[in-house]
Amino acid sequence: MTSLAMIEAAASRLAGRARRTPLLSSPFLDEVAGRRVFVKAECLQHTGSFKFRGGWSAVSGLEPDVRQRGVIAFSSGNHAQGVAYAARLHGIACVIIMPSDAPKLKIANTRAFGAEVVLYDRATEDRDAIGATLSAERGLTLVKPFDEPLVIAGQATVGLEIAEQALEEGVSGGEVLVPCGGGGLTSGIALALEAQAPGLIVRSCEPEGFDDTARSLATGTIQRNAQLSGSLCDAIITPQPGDITFPILKRLCGAGIAVNEDEVLRAMALAFTRLKIVIEPGGAVAVAAALFRGGELKSDTAIAVASGGNVDGALFRAALEKYAD
Amino acid sequence: MTSLAMIEAAASRLAGRARRTPLLSSPFLDEVAGRRVFVKAECLQHTGSFKFRGGWSAVSGLEPDVRQRGVIAFSSGNHAQGVAYAARLHGIACVIIMPSDAPKLKIANTRAFGAEVVLYDRATEDRDAIGATLSAERGLTLVKPFDEPLVIAGQATVGLEIAEQALEEGVSGGEVLVPCGGGGLTSGIALALEAQAPGLIVRSCEPEGFDDTARSLATGTIQRNAQLSGSLCDAIITPQPGDITFPILKRLCGAGIAVNEDEVLRAMALAFTRLKIVIEPGGAVAVAAALFRGGELKSDTAIAVASGGNVDGALFRAALEKYAD
Repeated sequence: MTSLAMIEAAASRLAGRARRTPLLSSPFLDEVAGRRVFVKAECLQHTGSFKFRGGWSAVSGLEPDVRQRGVIAFSSGNHAQGVAYAARLHGIACVIIMPSDAPKLKIANTRAFGAEVVLYDRATEDRDAIGATLSAERGLTLVKPFDEPLVIAGQATVGLEIAEQALEEGVSGGEVLVPCGGGGLTSGIALALEAQAPGLIVRSCEPEGFDDTARSLATGTIQRNAQLSGSLCDAIITPQPGDITFPILKRLCGAGIAVNEDEVLRAMALAFTRLKIVIEPGGAVAVAAALFRGGELKSDTAIAVASGGNVDGALFRAALEKYAD
Repeated sequence: MTSLAMIEAAASRLAGRARRTPLLSSPFLDEVAGRRVFVKAECLQHTGSFKFRGGWSAVSGLEPDVRQRGVIAFSSGNHAQGVAYAARLHGIACVIIMPSDAPKLKIANTRAFGAEVVLYDRATEDRDAIGATLSAERGLTLVKPFDEPLVIAGQATVGLEIAEQALEEGVSGGEVLVPCGGGGLTSGIALALEAQAPGLIVRSCEPEGFDDTARSLATGTIQRNAQLSGSLCDAIITPQPGDITFPILKRLCGAGIAVNEDEVLRAMALAFTRLKIVIEPGGAVAVAAALFRGGELKSDTAIAVASGGNVDGALFRAALEKYAD
């Protein structure tokens, strides 16, 4: 179980390694949203997403002799890059198992960080079997993407920073909107804020049609997504909330929010025009909720996490062509 | 004459108003450049460029009764927004005289910050006459874009932050590359670094064909640009270095560097892919120099200022289409 002590230990291991990303704002976005909006620009983190925090936390938290044998991870892209870069900085071997339809930028970056990338076909191959074989043969340690206390503790450092930065802005109450896949970032931020800024309540954000967390929170039991492909928001599509993360979400978060793809593209375009940052679709769902789902919010201040920016040029151009001309 | 005391006074007035923008980096950019590259992401500043610093410094530095009558500025866009937003935060009147061919985003933003925008035709109208009439009628104070000690002191706070952030990164020597129009930012940073980080040497960066500063530095006397239109880099095209800024540049800076428009577009695309920030063409010349003009650099570390991000969607898409697919 991830405790405040574990989160603070992760923050110590991350000091000087992860960036303290800025909390941005624009009067133009406040006007669109009809409330104060802050954006935690975690797309500016090393590797282009918050996943570096969890990757570094997990890899640096292993016993040295275990770490030395190397690590392995399954990921469509952001966790892959976070773990691969953490492994490279530690000088250890890293294997990443990725679906062959992952965004090309994410595959290329993972390789460029020095990882051995093994591609598999989602429809016909069993990634767990591929991973189990490689782990057994080489003695690699699996770094899970979210249902792992050290990973949650790493992602929770985003919450420690939000608590500090909100205070600097004079904000003591409001809602913190977080893009939610398996719930590692969302549960980590919720734990950090429970301890350090209890007036800030976390709301999970997802794409419509892939709102397993919102439905799980509504029913009180873990619900699955009906499908796992067909969303622009590849970074945050998971089968269901984690066994470790869901109880935390259930205890600490408000109702989940789901946004549509059009709102995601508009949020990406507005972040380009007003904040000068690049957000990928999955990383933009919380900004979209802050801007366009005010009717579902309960406070006059929304802090939205922009969790990643690893988007291919063609898709970003399409968002701009539609909404930023 | 701008002194360290004036710069520190400007920093005090800007505290809690301007953002301390992050110093970003990526191993992929280091590889392209063949050296360590850091990017001071001043495009993330309020109003999307460093100009808010100088605008706030100048407006907040006026005597209250003078300030109360309002301010006026000439600008194609970034200085306009910086002054307009500073005026709005002070609750005073603001008139901005802009060329009618300025980027539409910059004109719209300046209006949205509450300024009265007066458009003029560069070919047929005399902006100075328009400005003089308005100032006389309304008692407005002119905020010059660069040749003004309070403005230079405001821009110099970028240099104070670079000195601190370089130290945090363990960098004590290297070159600081700065997009240069009239030289307010470049001279301000040079003064701040002279005092706080003398191992960091400033190099001015400009587009080819508009390299008045580089030629002025080479000859030791102020040189003019042959033309003032026809560059993508609208933000940094000025007739010549300022009477106040040039002696500072001459005393403190290394040789100027000029980059071509293709290098500018490639730098914008790489900043998108690797740093997740949006840079406008004029704001990207220093990043372009760091990445592609290594032969003109003398050190193994380059700190490039990304000075602004106010680019229209269509132009940004063109850069991505060419270099980020």
